[in-house]
Amino acid sequence: MKIFVDITRERLQARGVGTAESGAGAVVEFAGVVRGEENGAPIAALDYEAYEAMARSEMERLAEELSLEYPCHRMEVRHRIGRVPAGEASILVWIEAKHRAEAFGMLSAFMDRLKRDVPIWKRSST
Amino acid sequence: MKIFVDITRERLQARGVGTAESGAGAVVEFAGVVRGEENGAPIAALDYEAYEAMARSEMERLAEELSLEYPCHRMEVRHRIGRVPAGEASILVWIEAKHRAEAFGMLSAFMDRLKRDVPIWKRSST
Repeated sequence: MKIFVDITRERLQARGVGTAESGAGAVVEFAGVVRGEENGAPIAALDYEAYEAMARSEMERLAEELSLEYPCHRMEVRHRIGRVPAGEASILVWIEAKHRAEAFGMLSAFMDRLKRDVPIWKRSST
Repeated sequence: MKIFVDITRERLQARGVGTAESGAGAVVEFAGVVRGEENGAPIAALDYEAYEAMARSEMERLAEELSLEYPCHRMEVRHRIGRVPAGEASILVWIEAKHRAEAFGMLSAFMDRLKRDVPIWKRSST
């Protein structure tokens, strides 16, 4: 599986699911978006911090590990850090696979494990 | 949940996950793409046929039913019929939800049930 991981302070741009390479039957893209409230109180933004080099290598390692269970063709992960205003994406995940089962399984498992394994933290600001 | 369903003979255009309405924390888009082979033999395209009115209302009914288990904000389904060349999408599904669990659950369940419940058929052509 080809894996591309990036951590950036720039606004994230969706890649789009419109194109697929030969042999791919499923393309899925996910945006995790900062919501305008947390625990019932309004927030203006979330501030993300990361150990960048470690977060990048942990995301690559995690994708590699999960690809044994969910073999996909290609996966791209872009995580934004710094201040992310409500309504904007803090993470984009794009996956291309032969069948949708692997793509959906990879996406769901990766997002669950990301929160647990990868050194990225967030703090809300009003 | 707001539901938009379309059946078209035109090439499908992805909507993109870059924007989300207030309160949405998860946006996911899926493209089901025609692969260039079926049962090991190369194919040039799949030809899709549908009882259009019934397929449309069945997709709406299915989304409504599944929204009881996976409540999402908005869901859009676009199914292409007629000849769909290999490498192009036969279906696009776009979902916006408060949390990713509902969005992923809805997407996966909808695609599984679509094949079973909705009167759309395909035939390969070389």
